[in-house]
Amino acid sequence: MIDGIKIGYIGGGSMNWAWAVMGDIALESGLSGEVRLYDLDLESAKANEKIGNSITQSKWTYTACASLEETLKGVDFVIISILPGSFDEMESDVHLPEKYGIYQSVGDTTGPAGIVRAMRTVPMMLEIGGAIHAHCPGAWVINYTNPMAACVNALYRAFSGIKAFGCCHEAFHVQKLLAKFMEMETDKAVSKDDININFLGVNHFVWADKASYKNTDLMPLFAKFAQKYAANGYALNKDDTDKNNHFRNLNRVCFDLYSKYGVIPVAGDRHLAEFMPPWYLSDANSAESWGFDLTPVSWRKSNLQKLVAKRTRLLTGEEQFIPENSGEEGTQLIKALLGINDMLTTVNLPNTGQMKDIGHGIVVETNAIIRRDAVYPVCAGKLPDAVHLMVEKHANQQDMLMRACMKKDIDLAFNVFLNDNLIQLSLTDSQDLFNQLVNNTKAYLDGWK
Amino acid sequence: MIDGIKIGYIGGGSMNWAWAVMGDIALESGLSGEVRLYDLDLESAKANEKIGNSITQSKWTYTACASLEETLKGVDFVIISILPGSFDEMESDVHLPEKYGIYQSVGDTTGPAGIVRAMRTVPMMLEIGGAIHAHCPGAWVINYTNPMAACVNALYRAFSGIKAFGCCHEAFHVQKLLAKFMEMETDKAVSKDDININFLGVNHFVWADKASYKNTDLMPLFAKFAQKYAANGYALNKDDTDKNNHFRNLNRVCFDLYSKYGVIPVAGDRHLAEFMPPWYLSDANSAESWGFDLTPVSWRKSNLQKLVAKRTRLLTGEEQFIPENSGEEGTQLIKALLGINDMLTTVNLPNTGQMKDIGHGIVVETNAIIRRDAVYPVCAGKLPDAVHLMVEKHANQQDMLMRACMKKDIDLAFNVFLNDNLIQLSLTDSQDLFNQLVNNTKAYLDGWK
Amino acid sequence: MIDGIKIGYIGGGSMNWAWAVMGDIALESGLSGEVRLYDLDLESAKANEKIGNSITQSKWTYTACASLEETLKGVDFVIISILPGSFDEMESDVHLPEKYGIYQSVGDTTGPAGIVRAMRTVPMMLEIGGAIHAHCPGAWVINYTNPMAACVNALYRAFSGIKAFGCCHEAFHVQKLLAKFMEMETDKAVSKDDININFLGVNHFVWADKASYKNTDLMPLFAKFAQKYAANGYALNKDDTDKNNHFRNLNRVCFDLYSKYGVIPVAGDRHLAEFMPPWYLSDANSAESWGFDLTPVSWRKSNLQKLVAKRTRLLTGEEQFIPENSGEEGTQLIKALLGINDMLTTVNLPNTGQMKDIGHGIVVETNAIIRRDAVYPVCAGKLPDAVHLMVEKHANQQDMLMRACMKKDIDLAFNVFLNDNLIQLSLTDSQDLFNQLVNNTKAYLDGWK
Amino acid sequence: MIDGIKIGYIGGGSMNWAWAVMGDIALESGLSGEVRLYDLDLESAKANEKIGNSITQSKWTYTACASLEETLKGVDFVIISILPGSFDEMESDVHLPEKYGIYQSVGDTTGPAGIVRAMRTVPMMLEIGGAIHAHCPGAWVINYTNPMAACVNALYRAFSGIKAFGCCHEAFHVQKLLAKFMEMETDKAVSKDDININFLGVNHFVWADKASYKNTDLMPLFAKFAQKYAANGYALNKDDTDKNNHFRNLNRVCFDLYSKYGVIPVAGDRHLAEFMPPWYLSDANSAESWGFDLTPVSWRKSNLQKLVAKRTRLLTGEEQFIPENSGEEGTQLIKALLGINDMLTTVNLPNTGQMKDIGHGIVVETNAIIRRDAVYPVCAGKLPDAVHLMVEKHANQQDMLMRACMKKDIDLAFNVFLNDNLIQLSLTDSQDLFNQLVNNTKAYLDGWK
Repeated sequence: MIDGIKIGYIGGGSMNWAWAVMGDIALESGLSGEVRLYDLDLESAKANEKIGNSITQSKWTYTACASLEETLKGVDFVIISILPGSFDEMESDVHLPEKYGIYQSVGDTTGPAGIVRAMRTVPMMLEIGGAIHAHCPGAWVINYTNPMAACVNALYRAFSGIKAFGCCHEAFHVQKLLAKFMEMETDKAVSKDDININFLGVNHFVWADKASYKNTDLMPLFAKFAQKYAANGYALNKDDTDKNNHFRNLNRVCFDLYSKYGVIPVAGDRHLAEFMPPWYLSDANSAESWGFDLTPVSWRKSNLQKLVAKRTRLLTGEEQFIPENSGEEGTQLIKALLGINDMLTTVNLPNTGQMKDIGHGIVVETNAIIRRDAVYPVCAGKLPDAVHLMVEKHANQQDMLMRACMKKDIDLAFNVFLNDNLIQLSLTDSQDLFNQLVNNTKAYLDGWK
Repeated sequence: MIDGIKIGYIGGGSMNWAWAVMGDIALESGLSGEVRLYDLDLESAKANEKIGNSITQSKWTYTACASLEETLKGVDFVIISILPGSFDEMESDVHLPEKYGIYQSVGDTTGPAGIVRAMRTVPMMLEIGGAIHAHCPGAWVINYTNPMAACVNALYRAFSGIKAFGCCHEAFHVQKLLAKFMEMETDKAVSKDDININFLGVNHFVWADKASYKNTDLMPLFAKFAQKYAANGYALNKDDTDKNNHFRNLNRVCFDLYSKYGVIPVAGDRHLAEFMPPWYLSDANSAESWGFDLTPVSWRKSNLQKLVAKRTRLLTGEEQFIPENSGEEGTQLIKALLGINDMLTTVNLPNTGQMKDIGHGIVVETNAIIRRDAVYPVCAGKLPDAVHLMVEKHANQQDMLMRACMKKDIDLAFNVFLNDNLIQLSLTDSQDLFNQLVNNTKAYLDGWK
Repeated sequence: MIDGIKIGYIGGGSMNWAWAVMGDIALESGLSGEVRLYDLDLESAKANEKIGNSITQSKWTYTACASLEETLKGVDFVIISILPGSFDEMESDVHLPEKYGIYQSVGDTTGPAGIVRAMRTVPMMLEIGGAIHAHCPGAWVINYTNPMAACVNALYRAFSGIKAFGCCHEAFHVQKLLAKFMEMETDKAVSKDDININFLGVNHFVWADKASYKNTDLMPLFAKFAQKYAANGYALNKDDTDKNNHFRNLNRVCFDLYSKYGVIPVAGDRHLAEFMPPWYLSDANSAESWGFDLTPVSWRKSNLQKLVAKRTRLLTGEEQFIPENSGEEGTQLIKALLGINDMLTTVNLPNTGQMKDIGHGIVVETNAIIRRDAVYPVCAGKLPDAVHLMVEKHANQQDMLMRACMKKDIDLAFNVFLNDNLIQLSLTDSQDLFNQLVNNTKAYLDGWK
Repeated sequence: MIDGIKIGYIGGGSMNWAWAVMGDIALESGLSGEVRLYDLDLESAKANEKIGNSITQSKWTYTACASLEETLKGVDFVIISILPGSFDEMESDVHLPEKYGIYQSVGDTTGPAGIVRAMRTVPMMLEIGGAIHAHCPGAWVINYTNPMAACVNALYRAFSGIKAFGCCHEAFHVQKLLAKFMEMETDKAVSKDDININFLGVNHFVWADKASYKNTDLMPLFAKFAQKYAANGYALNKDDTDKNNHFRNLNRVCFDLYSKYGVIPVAGDRHLAEFMPPWYLSDANSAESWGFDLTPVSWRKSNLQKLVAKRTRLLTGEEQFIPENSGEEGTQLIKALLGINDMLTTVNLPNTGQMKDIGHGIVVETNAIIRRDAVYPVCAGKLPDAVHLMVEKHANQQDMLMRACMKKDIDLAFNVFLNDNLIQLSLTDSQDLFNQLVNNTKAYLDGWK
């Protein structure tokens, strides 16, 4: 039992990630302490303070804080999950490019939407990083904010001694898929936690060159099922074929890429499609034909309204906050960093050798050992040449995007945009689209030149 | 006076590069020796033997050789300038993609044509390299063959002790342009040889971040003229505006790229356009509107006929071979390697540090010191971020292309093709085009899988 | 239960490491298969064949083989633990330098003895590596042979696709010591397996910059005990103070180095002393005064006689071979490589980023994840400057030693010798000593120049 | 003719380097401008102001300045040649170690004296670097101060955009020697400026792996003469055999090292001896027996008195300052940086690839191209293994020494000291000597811990 843990939560007014963390730590019997909630929208943070403190089985106290300093002073852990700007900006990022024939299924990392999102986000990360440097330089910083690679990279470039890393749940997807395939093959129950994978890539464009379950090599098994389900896809969850589910996923892009490259792309199809040339996003109906959806921002807006309504019910007592296991790893990571248990999981960190022939300092995603007060990435080797070429390109793009955002250099950001795989426009159209996107988000681009 | 120099010339039946070399060394009073001519077309080599030996003022003897061994045994220098395949294959490389909306102005380095050309050429380079390794391991190898980076890279990857480098005259162009601008500014004669430039890039996509004439910084001067001539271009040679000149060049692409990036692209517009996204090659008329031409392979074929006719005249004695200074550097390089004079010029070599943040071993083009039995590249630094991003992408593409050609791995070559800036096709069209291109050149693709 | 495992054991006539492995695998209920024993002394291998097959509870069959080919054909694992030369050569390596005032406590890695041992050993490793490459290229190779770094390095330089790594038990020592200190501090039982350490270094000169037990940081604890026992040392085992125990160890060198550098040297004092300047080995009595011994080779010889006598008893049936847990990790490593369980332990591998600012390709010792058919070293960071300087020097020395042995270049080996920390002689004496050492081992130096 | 050049001279009260520069620029007809003299001893600077302004043929004006700001504001060039501390401190550095059997012939770079000198000097360099950064960030900084590598390295680590490099005349020595040998061989006059050399190393421990004169390879010639003069040495200058010349040099150490390593050590014997183990400095008479001298600091002191006397004469008008060509390159470097002529010479710069397999950022000495506003080091390759091992060790030592001095970390400096080749003492004696040396220079060690 470890008491007195102090967590600073940036983006603490969220009704998504924050509630997940609040639930997970409530269920974790071995830990207690305080969580300080910071949000640009202070009222939301105050709402979460009330909700957090209302959880009866929780051994944690919650406080909404009005400043980064108050939030971070002396904390042991910092969690960052912010949404830079509102869904209005995201709507422009994701849907305006459709006028130019560019379709995006997520819009948080790459493509025009990812680039503009970075331009809003990285300066905020630097402000948060500066406050961490000043008020809790020894704290561990867990980032969930996208675009992941640019965010983590910026923290390290600006604050060399920082102890930060980025986490993403996309890797679990392929573990569940492989567990399921193994179950189908053997008729025995298989836990995703027993699926061992070697991960290499950049966030949301990560690949597995080895996968095993105990002493079984899963690569041939995956090859078999990828072929079997190439045409019609495989639905891991029951709503994966539901046309109303904007996150549906039949893994057909995954299987198709596997058939081309011989290694397994780890993320869901909505993410994968955005990193390739517009093979799977060539027109408005392309995604549909591959079995996934262009998640509309309008859905995010209406979903937000539902969450606000729920929050009202939680605050009035009409509804109780029931802690549930979110499936996210945050609490496990904190336990590992406290020394309670070793953990091997995939994280985003500057490359110091974990990926061969990717520039040092560029943020990559690989496995790492998490231990008491330490995160050690593993040397994961190198992807096959054809995949390495693509991953290296995206890694370099994300690195350059981070540089553009740190310098607030709009020309450099535009050059990253011009090099993006989804941009296949004339120079004039490229400039027009970029200008409009930037203009729509200009409230967040103070100081750019 | 150095006598007894032995040169092996691979591609020695050529009526272009070979005649240039034959003329230059005839004019060089301090050197003499023998030149052995090797060509897959032995008759052409024999014709050049006769022509070479007919040059009255020349102190060199010429011998056509039927094998690489005979050609290379014990030579001091090897010159390689081969055309892999015939102009029929080149016609497919360059013009077939036009059916898919892809226009190419040269087709020797990048784009679909450059990729397929590499597939034919690199295996030949490896055969030549093997013969060099066996018969003249200490010889200096000067390569003029394109695609330059893939060719030089392959020689080094396969034969680690080789003493090879690649030369390209494109760099002279910007020196002439800067000399001209300086003359216009000062009303005094300026020699291109006095224009000092720091070069960084990959062959045909090289940039200058510094340029000076004595104590004058030429960068502001270039900026001024680039702006002045942005709209209408500047014709360095009198036939640069001639619509019948398929090599015409108004430097408008060069000026446009300078205005975007602040550093000077060094090659002619026909080359530059192919390395960018299809901004300057967006449709059949795009090149024309920028003042350059899509050099048709039909022209190369008819020009070849003229050269054959000239050769006949030279062989029959109807015409005399008149040595002229070709403007190429080959003879100067040989003199420098013999120790007669130091030389600073731009060469293609595997990166050992001359370009910062480009992978080691990847072939780049920078200045180098040429001295007695030595070539030392200079550490040229790093281009501005936005340009570095583009150069790095092309450097990695050329490196991967070389790997594909060394392994004869057609899937990997296809992946390089898919990543090429000029390819903006659906996956199906990409596959169709690639298959046709490969099929048209299959006579040269023995052993590919 | 995994059956049919095939192990090739090189040095299979040994009565030390081989018996340990034979005991360990007999005790491991989940595995069975065959072990092929190879030894230059075939009779010893035959003796071990008999002994191995006599172990009643063992599910393994043993066969002595007369050739490397027969031993290695199609095996899954190769274990290499050879003694290059006999104890006569080792006697010269270790004791001849005493005439020049150079005292060595082990003589297997560094110092004059380590260098000459490498000269005998590396060529043998290359022969074994060649046979592995030819007969079982996909096998995992576990090396126990010293000098570890030079041996593993040579395998990788000569056979780039090899799957080899080196194991050493010295790291367990500090884990036991820390477990003991934690027990003393808390009065609770602590297992060495729960001591988490971050290892960095070259074999036998490895350091820990972090150590923890669950959520307790052990570095301050070690500091406390290192100070407490600085003067009189601490005996971990009951015979560690026994003057007749030639392996005795009071950890005073360890504590002293910790006090100077603030990180924990991991090996026993006998090893540590040899890597430093002769501070702890300045004269014949120096080791004694620090509580350790210059293990005499005469003892090794007489011990060998005892083992031979025991072997005779085992072969005649006078004595039964009783399998015991040796404390070595070999069997666990095999299980991990088969996929039965993940394992995190310290291994010797070429640096690909696991140690910052050490040359790539140089063999270092750090933690690694062992999984089904994979070994992933972890990025362990960088030691404090002063220690990094020493480790880098030794890493470079071992690398150069390997180069000398691969080229059989006696001048280069002599230069490694001249740079060794224990050599503080005039150039003449250095040459004399080296010549004598080489002469005494010349039977093993075929082809050196 | 370039007018209006502004030079800030740090150490401008010197009667050695400053006078050399004053003479050289007076003789240079194409340049004029102002020189600002700064010295901790302002009176000396004022004296040099008067002397400088008294040079009748000089087109330069001299001003002594009381602050770094005044000296550096807006200058184009900065020259740094400072003596940190007085000859009293140097006397302790050089001669105190003799009590411990350590003999030093120069004492400015390596060995105990070099280390302690760095401790005094590097903090001053950082102060000067800070002023350059503030007052003339675009100026070119030419450093002559020793220890060269640590000084230049510190400037780059602390001020990343600085344009500094280090110059040393030791390289000229081997050029003169080779020119002389070539003259002896051919009976024709040979200028040292026509001797082409490829340099690799760290300052004062630089080696030549190639040397040529026009088309003649000089390496075999050097081999011949090195053997011929091995026993008795060769005196390049007439006073090189004079026992009263404390800088005498018979090149016997140079020839001996060449015979061992096959590449030419470039510096004079007095420098070379200090970098090796004490082979040539084993006792008080060792240097003498090799034909060089342990330059006594007492001589430097008495020589200083002579210079002061001369200064008095110059100031009183009793003597005229006669500009002479000093043989130093400073003026040529300034002309090259102004763009008047290209120059190829050896400089000290952080490694960015000019020396293979030496850590990036560590200061090395190789050839470089000097051009208008640019210095480009050449990629000089790698020394033979045995020499590389030694050079790498010294490069790493100098790098660590710089780190110790930047952090003012006395323990780290002591560890560099313990690793120095000349230190072959017990730990106690090492500590005693170091403590005394530090104590004798403590007036200059403010803030060290």
